[in-house]
Amino acid sequence: MESLIRTATEADLKAVRDLVLELAIFEREPEAVTATEQDYHNAYANNEIFIKVAEANGEIIGMVLYYLTFSTWKGKMMYLEDFYVKKAYRKLGVGAQLFNAFLKDSKDRGCVLTKWQVLDWNTSAIEFYKARGAEIEKQWWNGKLFLNDYG
Amino acid sequence: MESLIRTATEADLKAVRDLVLELAIFEREPEAVTATEQDYHNAYANNEIFIKVAEANGEIIGMVLYYLTFSTWKGKMMYLEDFYVKKAYRKLGVGAQLFNAFLKDSKDRGCVLTKWQVLDWNTSAIEFYKARGAEIEKQWWNGKLFLNDYG
Repeated sequence: MESLIRTATEADLKAVRDLVLELAIFEREPEAVTATEQDYHNAYANNEIFIKVAEANGEIIGMVLYYLTFSTWKGKMMYLEDFYVKKAYRKLGVGAQLFNAFLKDSKDRGCVLTKWQVLDWNTSAIEFYKARGAEIEKQWWNGKLFLNDYG
Repeated sequence: MESLIRTATEADLKAVRDLVLELAIFEREPEAVTATEQDYHNAYANNEIFIKVAEANGEIIGMVLYYLTFSTWKGKMMYLEDFYVKKAYRKLGVGAQLFNAFLKDSKDRGCVLTKWQVLDWNTSAIEFYKARGAEIEKQWWNGKLFLNDYG
């Protein structure tokens, strides 16, 4: 299959958010996405997020979305927030191309480390990452607090 | 005990990194910190990190270090990277003051959500977070890949 990996433009942000919605359904939290398209536009305009998309037949069929953070242990770090390929286009190498584009851009931007999260039951994703030499750590739990009720 | 919570200045960065080293020892990874003081200075100067410190008798005895990220599900998010109070100063309310300063600043900066990680065996930290209404999620694993060998 011919697919093109490229940096997302502002015009792609709606399609990117649609893929995030699909991913949330896959992750069994269909109601979880409350971030608006405007939130995406603001973050994109401020360089707070970077996105590569995969395009085939004029359609966005996959994406990686990531941002710069700082590891107090290692220094400049890139965090992979979302990574998704539409179901009909899996097992064709699109995910590998997107993930490589993410790694290359992270290195080009001076990062020493990349990090992300994966659900413990998502064995095919875990295998994908392990095949690329990633470490999978199981001893950390996530804390989460919403601010609308605070203060 | 009299302690003062304030925004860290550039002159505090060495003390902040020393606390990160103490925290890494507590988390049983004493060799893990390779980020240099210069890395901290760069991140601080570029507003890539925000830090509140607790001071007592002219000494930095605790800190929270955090940065802005983007949740594709929720929007503008603050990530708590490190949170530490020196052992001799625990159980005195310093941690609560630091954590509140972190939440307040996160809300002031327009975030809807805060996130962080905690080790599964660190029960006192987990209780501290739960007492503040935080959700603790156990179903996510961390993926990690270093870039020095890539490309």
